[in-house]
Amino acid sequence: MGKIICTGLGPGDPDLMSLRAHRLISTARHVAYFHKVGHRGNARTIVEGQLAAGVTEHAMQYPVTTEIPITDPEYNRLLADFYNSWAETLGEISQHEDVVVLCEGDPFLYGSFMHLHSRLQDVAEVEIVPGISGMSGCWTATGMPITWGDDVLTVMMATLSEDELATRAANTDALVVMKIGRNLPKLRRALKRAGRLQDTWLVERGTMPEQKVQKMDEITGDVPYFSIALVHGQGRRP
Amino acid sequence: MGKIICTGLGPGDPDLMSLRAHRLISTARHVAYFHKVGHRGNARTIVEGQLAAGVTEHAMQYPVTTEIPITDPEYNRLLADFYNSWAETLGEISQHEDVVVLCEGDPFLYGSFMHLHSRLQDVAEVEIVPGISGMSGCWTATGMPITWGDDVLTVMMATLSEDELATRAANTDALVVMKIGRNLPKLRRALKRAGRLQDTWLVERGTMPEQKVQKMDEITGDVPYFSIALVHGQGRRP
Repeated sequence: MGKIICTGLGPGDPDLMSLRAHRLISTARHVAYFHKVGHRGNARTIVEGQLAAGVTEHAMQYPVTTEIPITDPEYNRLLADFYNSWAETLGEISQHEDVVVLCEGDPFLYGSFMHLHSRLQDVAEVEIVPGISGMSGCWTATGMPITWGDDVLTVMMATLSEDELATRAANTDALVVMKIGRNLPKLRRALKRAGRLQDTWLVERGTMPEQKVQKMDEITGDVPYFSIALVHGQGRRP
Repeated sequence: MGKIICTGLGPGDPDLMSLRAHRLISTARHVAYFHKVGHRGNARTIVEGQLAAGVTEHAMQYPVTTEIPITDPEYNRLLADFYNSWAETLGEISQHEDVVVLCEGDPFLYGSFMHLHSRLQDVAEVEIVPGISGMSGCWTATGMPITWGDDVLTVMMATLSEDELATRAANTDALVVMKIGRNLPKLRRALKRAGRLQDTWLVERGTMPEQKVQKMDEITGDVPYFSIALVHGQGRRP
């Protein structure tokens, strides 16, 4: 009997994965990872050169990402089928051998593995290894603490409505916003309404070689979906 | 010329520190860490058995923790003197050699190092290595994802007023509460008012050998200051 081990790989720099993650991926006989059509995926990229000889790779390619609106029932159906099918496949392998699922960041913080996890509850033994989150890699890249003392930290997705983004941005000390991409203009308007725009940083690919740290109000072009916006808390400091 | 490198050590299990953290601490000639009177401190405990022979240890003992109320100006003065003095000492060492500062969790997320960091800005070269946060260790210990899809996550300290705790607990999808200890009764009342008490988990010493995971409404006695309360988000799931 084997098990399914989902290991967080950290924010991007391979040197930031945990000792446990490194041992798991360098000795695994089966690894699985999510990726989009035409992209290898960050998870697989992070472990490049570290997998054992003879490993079997299971590339779990999303059937759809942004081609269909998330509100279309077809989107939900396609993804449910995809997760059902991979839960079955990985569950079968785990009857005999361990499978290591590679996840960038921290698996239980907005990770995709949870959709397999919920389907594997009574099917296989599952273990989760936490990782340094992408947002931590990004706030470390700004060179300033994200929270001090009794600061309240809000983490939200730029997919929310402009009104909700503005209200929440105004009503917190420190702020992290993910899933930006095409939501950038909406997010910028919301941050301006909340009086936080001039204090917002935008980090692309934190801890990776292409890392880019900018003030939000100096950005003119587009930003990737996986960029992260940050407002640092200003709490108590003796 | 050396520098001051503050490295996150993760939530407690030494196997969860990063490859980079492990290399730094096992080769350092100078390490420094915070601790309370009569306690060795979690940071130093995590690296037990991993320091190089001949390392010089700088134990930075807090002059006060909970003996004086945080609102007393004397509290602030004592801590400011403490941080000023250690910033000077570590800054001087770093003129000649590297100093590795050990920090449990993630240094820029409510870490104590930031009080040295702000004082070292124009004095020494400082580098931060992120770590897996204590809250990540705790939500991983519950065996359930903390956030899904577009969930909003709020991180707050139990030191806030009961009204503010209740309002914020009611107005978020997922919730993390730190600094509990003697604030437990207040936090419990606030969670009840927010209708979240029955969904709250309490994790003590996540990922450490003494790890304890309980439902909040089943707790009868006291809990340590560094226990963490969690409410899992219930967002979109295909």
